Amino acid sequence: MSGSGRAPASAIVTVGNELLYGETVDTNAAWLGRILAGWGLPVAKRYTVGDIAEDIRETVSLALKEVELVVVTGGLGPTRDDLTKGVVADLMGRSLVRNEDAWHALQAHFRAAGEDEVPELSRGQADVPEGARVLVNPRGTAPGIVLDAGEALLVLLPGVPDELEAIVEGGLLSAIDGRLGDRRRGHVVHHRVVHTTGIVETHLAERLEKRLEALPDDITDGIDLAYLPDVLGVDLRLSIRGGGPDEAERRFDVFVESITDLLGEWQYEASDGDLAEAVSAELRRSGRTVAVAESCTGGLVAKRLTDRAGASEILVGGVVAYADAVKIGEVGVKQADLQREGAVSETVARQLSERVAERLGADTGIGVTGVAGPGGGSLDKPVGTVWIATTVGGETEAVRHRFAGDRLAVREASAQAALAQLYRRLRDDGAKG
Amino acid sequence: MSGSGRAPASAIVTVGNELLYGETVDTNAAWLGRILAGWGLPVAKRYTVGDIAEDIRETVSLALKEVELVVVTGGLGPTRDDLTKGVVADLMGRSLVRNEDAWHALQAHFRAAGEDEVPELSRGQADVPEGARVLVNPRGTAPGIVLDAGEALLVLLPGVPDELEAIVEGGLLSAIDGRLGDRRRGHVVHHRVVHTTGIVETHLAERLEKRLEALPDDITDGIDLAYLPDVLGVDLRLSIRGGGPDEAERRFDVFVESITDLLGEWQYEASDGDLAEAVSAELRRSGRTVAVAESCTGGLVAKRLTDRAGASEILVGGVVAYADAVKIGEVGVKQADLQREGAVSETVARQLSERVAERLGADTGIGVTGVAGPGGGSLDKPVGTVWIATTVGGETEAVRHRFAGDRLAVREASAQAALAQLYRRLRDDGAKG
Repeated sequence: MSGSGRAPASAIVTVGNELLYGETVDTNAAWLGRILAGWGLPVAKRYTVGDIAEDIRETVSLALKEVELVVVTGGLGPTRDDLTKGVVADLMGRSLVRNEDAWHALQAHFRAAGEDEVPELSRGQADVPEGARVLVNPRGTAPGIVLDAGEALLVLLPGVPDELEAIVEGGLLSAIDGRLGDRRRGHVVHHRVVHTTGIVETHLAERLEKRLEALPDDITDGIDLAYLPDVLGVDLRLSIRGGGPDEAERRFDVFVESITDLLGEWQYEASDGDLAEAVSAELRRSGRTVAVAESCTGGLVAKRLTDRAGASEILVGGVVAYADAVKIGEVGVKQADLQREGAVSETVARQLSERVAERLGADTGIGVTGVAGPGGGSLDKPVGTVWIATTVGGETEAVRHRFAGDRLAVREASAQAALAQLYRRLRDDGAKG
Repeated sequence: MSGSGRAPASAIVTVGNELLYGETVDTNAAWLGRILAGWGLPVAKRYTVGDIAEDIRETVSLALKEVELVVVTGGLGPTRDDLTKGVVADLMGRSLVRNEDAWHALQAHFRAAGEDEVPELSRGQADVPEGARVLVNPRGTAPGIVLDAGEALLVLLPGVPDELEAIVEGGLLSAIDGRLGDRRRGHVVHHRVVHTTGIVETHLAERLEKRLEALPDDITDGIDLAYLPDVLGVDLRLSIRGGGPDEAERRFDVFVESITDLLGEWQYEASDGDLAEAVSAELRRSGRTVAVAESCTGGLVAKRLTDRAGASEILVGGVVAYADAVKIGEVGVKQADLQREGAVSETVARQLSERVAERLGADTGIGVTGVAGPGGGSLDKPVGTVWIATTVGGETEAVRHRFAGDRLAVREASAQAALAQLYRRLRDDGAKG
């Protein structure tokens, strides 16, 4: 099934001076690229042109000769510099005619905004090239437009990301599937992402590649594995091309099951990839709360935990213990220990974690103290040195890290490592109990 | 000067399957677009192709016919799927020859990484098409390459953003200026950005547009004004095309001077646009410190202030007072007031700000309490309701806000408004004293 010929190719044309001048980063093109590849319609080329009729015309015309599906985004607004629809109608020798569905949606849009009538300037938003199929825009005034352009299908979408995404997710696939469905289906790409943190890409790859060689072919065949590293961790993306979703899920299950012992303590589960989700779920599951005392991360750990809805169930609160006096007075670090060992030390990290939990009445604690830089480093405590302690079930554990990168990277990595340490200990504690 | 003919046009070709599949957002293209427009070489078209020799060849060939400068990024690495250099050499009928500058830089790069020799696979990184000019890459192994391609100049740059930016900023302009300098200079675009926060785009525009109409032409002529809004505020970007930088700076000064009374309390100065920079500078200038008590922002205000180097000079610390018990026990909010008025109230915001400053021994204080959502809203305190208090010079001021958007947007807007309020009060206090 996956071997049945080449996938039908697509092309993207994004329109707008703001893209060429770099005032806007072309996130639409990347988003569409992922969607189309997933649908079995991989993007073969991408073009960006300004708000110039001749450039739009030439480029769309060129793209239509090269691929089976051309998606044009931008230039569908109601103002003078929105040229896409007119240029395309002209290129295809069709006139613009009022579409009833689009007109009703447009009226409803303005009624919802408290206006009785569609403003003069916006009425043209309901006009589309003759013979076009319309995809209603639930978030704006420019509908999506699907046209049969002979050799290829041509799709016009508004450039506002929210509107574009709503239209694509709303009904684009079924609108093009009469034509492309049979050919694309064998090339649909199924994905699963496995999240890891706390292990660098090369070490993860060394462990995995050896195992993959040893595994039977029926587990690994046809599954592509990509390593996607960033400052917070390494995601493993598994891909299978072709076949149905159920079959793909079954194969992903078997594959992951056969490597999961290697991923061990580094793996975590989070629907959106955020380790704070996994930590929050683990706290909630075990009915526990956490308090945080942060020096070098300066509020970032607490911020990560409170980014998520329902944080009040698991976070009691925290102290940003930046000055030594705050570490002593507000958390309860012992002055003598702080002076003897220094603020960046195992002893201070442990006391931050234990005392903040005790003082704020939380079941678990996190303490972070380190040198984020650029200043403040020394020979035995260079920039990037961070002590992280966690208190779970009355026991405190402390780990010394040495993170690379600038202040921002050290802070991000520190907060992630603090969450990872708490996560691991909560799971270990759960397994014991 | 600015009217002397059309600006020489440029085109960008970005190479890489990861761009087409949307795994990487093409930030290079946007960054280059801004740089080239600023240099008077505006981008007329942009292309993205995969790691396929035929596609790279055809697209570069097409672009060279359309513009005076073609910049190709990506595909310069040492592995099999890096095709750009070979394809371009072939297209131009030149062979690849070892470049001595590039070779020395390559040797130095590996020596710095602790390797005695350049690895076999990487040696080709020092080979460039005959007759090319090389721009050394201070951060990686692929140098920039400038080629005279007859009608146009052709520039090859690595796709890693850090490396690309270092090469472009290092010497690209002088490498192309022998050819394009005379023609581009009249089209150089000078910019100045004026930052505002706390006023929405439409209100800012209403005030400004009326003033601009009333101003004499010699102040406004030839200055373009763009409004760049985001969740944190609205930037005003002024642009002048052509002329020298000193003349542009003088004209920007006059223009800004003539609108600055309208921008009043909303304007702030920060080299990188971050209001936390302005707040930190104002605290430092007046020799004062701050302490923060945060409920709904959960550490975000402290995080903003500690993102910046030298934060320990101005931030004593903070309390993430998420649970009511922490507001009472760790900050000193009165239990009776909290119960009577509720956690999201003027009284609690005031007490958070006053008491956290007092308790942590800071000169000024910030208190934030609100409903970030999605849950927790009520009829009289809907989601987005946030009370922000600041204490400066012993006096506390509290403001009620109602922010739109989701949890993330409410939190970001709240932290920004808290910083803005402190900034305004520090300046007012400085003006008084």
